[in-house]
Amino acid sequence: MFLPKEDKFFNLFDKQAENLVRAAEYYRKLVDEGNFSPENVRKMHEFEHYGDELTHTTINLLNETFITPFDREDILALANRMDDIMDNIYLLTNRFSLYKISKPTLYSKKMAVTIEQTTKALRHTLAALRNKKHMKETQEYCVEINRLENEGDVLRDEAISDLFTNEKDPIMVIKQKELYEIAETTTDFCEHVANLVESILVKNN
Amino acid sequence: MFLPKEDKFFNLFDKQAENLVRAAEYYRKLVDEGNFSPENVRKMHEFEHYGDELTHTTINLLNETFITPFDREDILALANRMDDIMDNIYLLTNRFSLYKISKPTLYSKKMAVTIEQTTKALRHTLAALRNKKHMKETQEYCVEINRLENEGDVLRDEAISDLFTNEKDPIMVIKQKELYEIAETTTDFCEHVANLVESILVKNN
Amino acid sequence: MFLPKEDKFFNLFDKQAENLVRAAEYYRKLVDEGNFSPENVRKMHEFEHYGDELTHTTINLLNETFITPFDREDILALANRMDDIMDNIYLLTNRFSLYKISKPTLYSKKMAVTIEQTTKALRHTLAALRNKKHMKETQEYCVEINRLENEGDVLRDEAISDLFTNEKDPIMVIKQKELYEIAETTTDFCEHVANLVESILVKNN
Repeated sequence: MFLPKEDKFFNLFDKQAENLVRAAEYYRKLVDEGNFSPENVRKMHEFEHYGDELTHTTINLLNETFITPFDREDILALANRMDDIMDNIYLLTNRFSLYKISKPTLYSKKMAVTIEQTTKALRHTLAALRNKKHMKETQEYCVEINRLENEGDVLRDEAISDLFTNEKDPIMVIKQKELYEIAETTTDFCEHVANLVESILVKNN
Repeated sequence: MFLPKEDKFFNLFDKQAENLVRAAEYYRKLVDEGNFSPENVRKMHEFEHYGDELTHTTINLLNETFITPFDREDILALANRMDDIMDNIYLLTNRFSLYKISKPTLYSKKMAVTIEQTTKALRHTLAALRNKKHMKETQEYCVEINRLENEGDVLRDEAISDLFTNEKDPIMVIKQKELYEIAETTTDFCEHVANLVESILVKNN
Repeated sequence: MFLPKEDKFFNLFDKQAENLVRAAEYYRKLVDEGNFSPENVRKMHEFEHYGDELTHTTINLLNETFITPFDREDILALANRMDDIMDNIYLLTNRFSLYKISKPTLYSKKMAVTIEQTTKALRHTLAALRNKKHMKETQEYCVEINRLENEGDVLRDEAISDLFTNEKDPIMVIKQKELYEIAETTTDFCEHVANLVESILVKNN
């Protein structure tokens, strides 16, 4: 288990996590500036595309590797579930652009911070997966991700409550409600990956 | 397989199922009375929190147990998918409160009954999992859960058809439509658990 | 692996894929004609019901079979994920009927073509699964399914952008937006099955 020669998989997971952190940082910047121009959406699409490449590289590596650091299907699931997070950040960015939102709400800004923090905790989780000695540390980061996902839930609820109380234009209610839901789903998906990491640890304990 | 000494897992699944039944009963009561006060939502949150504790206890038990009654990943999936049901009942309760719905529709009341019945069938399914001799009984309850999930589908369709025919306020359409969809998702999630139970039986046959 | 005597499973997958293609063809026809009468919805329900039967036949066959062409849980997942596609095509048809849409938009028509093409690529993928020698061909169809799923994404985005720009009735926005989202989910679900096929190939390589 966790052989040094299997470092390639861990390096790919690190890269995927790093790409998520960069995308989340960039998303927060766009929300802060309210600038979802086609050019900026295209730049986010580059993160999404690079994430796809990393996922496919992981799958190809699986095809050529006889002994893997843990179950083949878990490696595949980890790569695919991280790809889900990236897809969701891109979807969110794209919807801000489609809905022509130039003044993101305070709630959208707060949720962008939570998303950024969650991807950073996730990066730690995946780095620690490399070494069984870090199991306790990994679990602590998983707890932190759970806390952040909860924070995302609370923010979304406050945002939606505020929306239905103060926004009278039904079209704007439809738009903003969806943006809040997709933002919260991003932290949900991060929690899925954290759960998967925990389950990999359980199986390889 | 299915060793007596592994009763702890079955006891935890029983407790999780019992918690779901209680939450579903409480939800039906709140819908009947139209009383989604912050205090009542908080009480539902206690069911949700207790469900989380049971899920974590199951994961910790997995960490300490060498021989499990069936595959480790299936135990984990069962605990997590039952948690999804509880999360969804809480989400539904919380949305009634956020949307300030004091007069739930007749359809919401009917769907609450279906949800309660489905969790009760699920409780039987999980109890029967304990003993391979009950395989036939387990499968019968799975069929019953499929029937109830279908009933949930039909109710949701009737409710949505009624909504788009009679409700003219778009904001209310947004709210009620979502409440119907979440209610139906609860029975969907119960069916997922039933499918998982069936798949565990298939693998251990 | 891939024993001739295990042809029964492959035959069932072929039938499920064929049923999906027929349902997708029928759906495209209904969208083209704008005719979602109760009778036509009932006919679509027959496809959905036949799909359910095939899924259950596969599960029963699993129960009676000692040696399976690949992992039992993957066979189960494949059957269930194909059933998801069928359920989604039925859901889409049913919503057109519930929402009383008699003039489907140009975007709905285009997406119906994409859905039909995706199910046809999926049929090839499953047929090729029968023989390891066809691995390269299978992977090419998986790439094609990815391309079609991307096309579905682009069409949905264009459709939603057009909707929020030109449709002023909030109730119609709610309806059309959901129809576009469900249509896109159909190609998403096809991609899930393609991913699953790829993962089965990875595991059995």
